[in-house]
Formats: sequence, structure tokens, C-alpha cells
Amino acid sequence: MGLLIVGSLALDTVITPFDKVEGALGGSATYISLAASYFSGPVELVGVVGNDFPDEYVRMLEDHGVDLEGLQKEEGKTFRWGGKYHYDLNVRDTLFTDLNVFEKFDPVIPEKFKKSKYVCLGNIDPTLQLKVLEQMIEPQLVVCDTMNYWIEGKKEELLQLLKRVDVLIINDSETRLLVQEPNLIKASKMIMDLGPQTLIIKKGEHGAMLFTDETIFSAPAYPMEMIYDPTGAGDSFAGGFTGYLFKTRDLSPNNLKSAVIYGSSMASFCVEKFSTKGLEELSYLQIQDRYREFLNISRIDETE
Amino acid sequence: MGLLIVGSLALDTVITPFDKVEGALGGSATYISLAASYFSGPVELVGVVGNDFPDEYVRMLEDHGVDLEGLQKEEGKTFRWGGKYHYDLNVRDTLFTDLNVFEKFDPVIPEKFKKSKYVCLGNIDPTLQLKVLEQMIEPQLVVCDTMNYWIEGKKEELLQLLKRVDVLIINDSETRLLVQEPNLIKASKMIMDLGPQTLIIKKGEHGAMLFTDETIFSAPAYPMEMIYDPTGAGDSFAGGFTGYLFKTRDLSPNNLKSAVIYGSSMASFCVEKFSTKGLEELSYLQIQDRYREFLNISRIDETE
Repeated sequence: MGLLIVGSLALDTVITPFDKVEGALGGSATYISLAASYFSGPVELVGVVGNDFPDEYVRMLEDHGVDLEGLQKEEGKTFRWGGKYHYDLNVRDTLFTDLNVFEKFDPVIPEKFKKSKYVCLGNIDPTLQLKVLEQMIEPQLVVCDTMNYWIEGKKEELLQLLKRVDVLIINDSETRLLVQEPNLIKASKMIMDLGPQTLIIKKGEHGAMLFTDETIFSAPAYPMEMIYDPTGAGDSFAGGFTGYLFKTRDLSPNNLKSAVIYGSSMASFCVEKFSTKGLEELSYLQIQDRYREFLNISRIDETE
Repeated sequence: MGLLIVGSLALDTVITPFDKVEGALGGSATYISLAASYFSGPVELVGVVGNDFPDEYVRMLEDHGVDLEGLQKEEGKTFRWGGKYHYDLNVRDTLFTDLNVFEKFDPVIPEKFKKSKYVCLGNIDPTLQLKVLEQMIEPQLVVCDTMNYWIEGKKEELLQLLKRVDVLIINDSETRLLVQEPNLIKASKMIMDLGPQTLIIKKGEHGAMLFTDETIFSAPAYPMEMIYDPTGAGDSFAGGFTGYLFKTRDLSPNNLKSAVIYGSSMASFCVEKFSTKGLEELSYLQIQDRYREFLNISRIDETE
């Protein structure tokens, strides 16, 4: 049994102050799968692409051991998204969102994936995320990403979904938005009352926080002087986080903390290059080195 | 020889969503001195008040071992500041700033303070901060706070000052403003080229970062559900940071990290109550407990 990942596959147009790419591989399921693939197989992807989806992208995913039996190929164009990042890279304009074949996406979980115990729901319509869970047979860990668009537009469906989610991964503004509470600590408790026993708040250049009933953990950000393309950072985090948990099969608070750092590590690799390039040619040794660098950033040698 | 602290003493009007106080003790030198007083004496304060400054505030500072020989008392009113915090407490409106006797403040360092090796320059006009340094005889560590008002209005004077500063403590938006660079890591290097060998960036609810030539350290924020009054948090940080260094006389990178956590600890006590109340009745044991709590927030037990 593998790690099931559901989300979008996209062809992205990305403009940053440094460069511009068109038709680059993107989508939440893509980034999550690639990031998770470095930890343990099999990684099982469920998603949809059109007949314009390049074979080379399919091969690249297969080369990373991603099982594509759940990848639907439909007549029409692949989901296309365009975004432009500003000078400070924290501000992004969406240039266009052409859903194309994604508009009618109906996630069908292949029989052999249904017993998978670890599930990562990438950022898509919560109605579809729920449909996925309904097909799964006793998943043990459900990790879920979402965004302000769904919090504002599909609140009821999202609240239904959250009752069945173990780990919710969102950013700080989404945290405040979801429960209408500016204090992150208060907001985190309110969100855990909605279902998830574990909440992870991604804070970009300020790192990430992990909340469980008994733990608050603060993870630093990796000190990056140059971010080439922030696209996919959150998905890479989710992939690294879930992939590490799937590899270790250990859901203790301390191992959740390690998973947050592995997630942060994968996000840091992701933004070092355009599109998925930063995630395509890593070694597990590199990932472990980055993990240790992260630990050093918040370490004090205690002599007392 | 003591720890010399220069800055403002004020009577504050503070409005938060929870309460309102008028004529409360405030000012950068006040918060810095109180926070530093818990680490090691003598703490030497240089500042100015009017003849309306309540005796009880003078006694309270003296009770904390603050040497007030450098406190000038002038005819007229004490510096008064009014601020209103919004619901999310990250947004503050300044209601009024009446400089009063502070307008003509000319810091005169008493003879017995001039040989002090540790100096903390609270947030006042950089021209005055420079005047202080010109009176000191070979200070060993100069810690300096400033704000956007001086970065925008007295840039040249501030740049002159920075050449003589060892540790600069500012927040993230001031960091970006000072060198016109959105990336904090790049900005930190640019600022260290201006003079300070050490830079501390305060990030409020996101903690703090320490930069030296050889170190980047990320300190978490204390998870606070209730912040009663954010006034003085930055000054309390500076006081705790400098006070701990003064106590330990150890400027190694590792001890600087500890000092950042002690600074964060004092800031967390400060905001738990209105005005200076959170800093008035602490024990060193409480401070050490808070320090350990901080360390736990970013600790992973490593078993590998």
C-alpha cells in the first residue's frame, strides 16, 4: 500500500522578476508527488490531464516512481494557470486560470489504491477532496491542503471535510480567515476543534508552526537570498511532510516535528529553481543535509 | 561599571480593545532599564522627565536598582505619547506625541557612567544617540534600537551612528526600509556592511532573527493567546538582550543566541500586562523558566 496523492496537474505560465516560463509542469498533485517520492514508495497519483500534456512530464513522474494508474487522460486541454510575482515575491497576481479538463474532474480511486493508509489531499475543491475520502477504506492519516478561495467560496463543504482530516496545512492568513480570529494561537485551537488533531501553519519567510493538543512547535525558514519561483512551495511542503511520515510510520509529536522540517526542506529546494526543476534531481543525502541545516538555524548549544 | 541605558521616559495613554490607561509609565529607557535590571546591576539610566513625573515611578525604578543619577528633571511636562491598538494588535495608530521636555533633551552622561563598557541606545533621535557615544570612553558593546521615523527622517545621521554600533535591533519592515531590499537575508548583509557586526530583526508574532558574520539564528515567538498591551515589547527585548550579555560578559555567537531568547522572554512578559506592570514583579527563576519554554518551542529530540 502506498501514499495516495490527489490534486491538480497543470501547465503553468510563471513570470518572476528574473525570468518567464510557459507551459511548465505545475499543479498541486505534481509538486506533492515529486516531493514525497524521495522518501518512500509507492507514491500513487490521482488527477487529470488533457491530450496536450507532454509525454516528457509523464516520464519524469514515472522516473520518480510515481504510480500513474490514477491519472485520467481526457480529450481537451490540461488545466492552465498563469501567475506573476512581484519584486518582493510575497505578492502574486493570478494572470489566468483555465480549468479546461479539470473543470469536470471526478476523482476515481483505482481499486489497488483504495486500501492505502496515507492520503494527501492537494489543494482542490473540498467537494472533490471529500469524494476521494469516501472511496478510501480506512485511511490512517489524512493530510489536507486548502486555500482562501475555498474557505471563502465553499466554507460548508470545507467544514464537512475537516471533520475527516487529521492534519490541515494552511498559511497564516488562511488560518485567520477560516475562523475569523487574528491571534494565531487562538485561531489554531479553534481550527483543531473543527476536526484536525494537527494543524500546520505555513508562514513563508517566517517558517512554519505545528500545533497538536500537547505541542506547539516553531520551525524556522531557510535563509534564502534568492527565490527563483515560489510556485509549488506549499505543495512541496505537504509532499515532504507526508512523505516522511509515510516512510517512518511514526505519528508521535516528535516525529511530526521532524516531518515539518522535512516539509520545509522540500519547499526550500522547490523555490530554488523554476517549475518542478528544483525537485527533479535531488538525492536523499542532500535532503538530509538540508534538514540538518534547518535544525542548526534554531539550535543553541546548551552548556548550562 | 554598569550598563548604560539612554532613551525616553514617557507618560503613555494606551487604548487596546481590552482597556484604556492614561499617564502610565512608558518610554524606551524605562522598558529597557526594567528588563535589564533582572540580569545584573548596576543599570544606569540617562533621560529626562518633567516636574509632573510621579514620584512613585521614580521609586519603582530605584527599587529595581536603576541608578538615576543621569535622569534630568526639567521644568515642564514629561514626554507624552498616546496610541491605540486595533483588534488584531499588529496595527497601531499614534494618537498624539507631545515631546514637551524631551524636545530639548541633551543627554549628559554623568562622570561615573562614562567608563561603562556596555551601552544600550534606546529608540531616540540618532543625533542624540551619537552625542551619547561621543561622551563614552571606549565602550565595548553598543546596542542600538531605532525606528522607521528616523530611517526616513534622519538617514544621514543614522548612517553615521551605525558605524559605531555593534548590535542593531530593528523590526522586519525597518530592515527592508533601511536598505531598500525586500529579501531579509540580503538586507541583513547590506546592513552589516553599514557597521553593525550583529543584526537582530524582531518579527513580532513570528519571533526574531540574529545575524552575525558566521551565524543565522531563528528564535521562535512565545505562543500568546492574549496580548494585553504590545507597548514596550521591542524595548523590553533590547533590555533583556543587553542585560543578559552584560551579566555574562560573553559575546560568542552561542551566547548571543541565548541573549536573543532572553530578550524575547522579557518582551513576552512585557505584553502580558499594561504599561510596565509585566516587568515590575518578576523573579529570575520565572525568567529562566520562560527561557526554557522558548527553547522547547523549537526543539526536536534527536534520536538518530
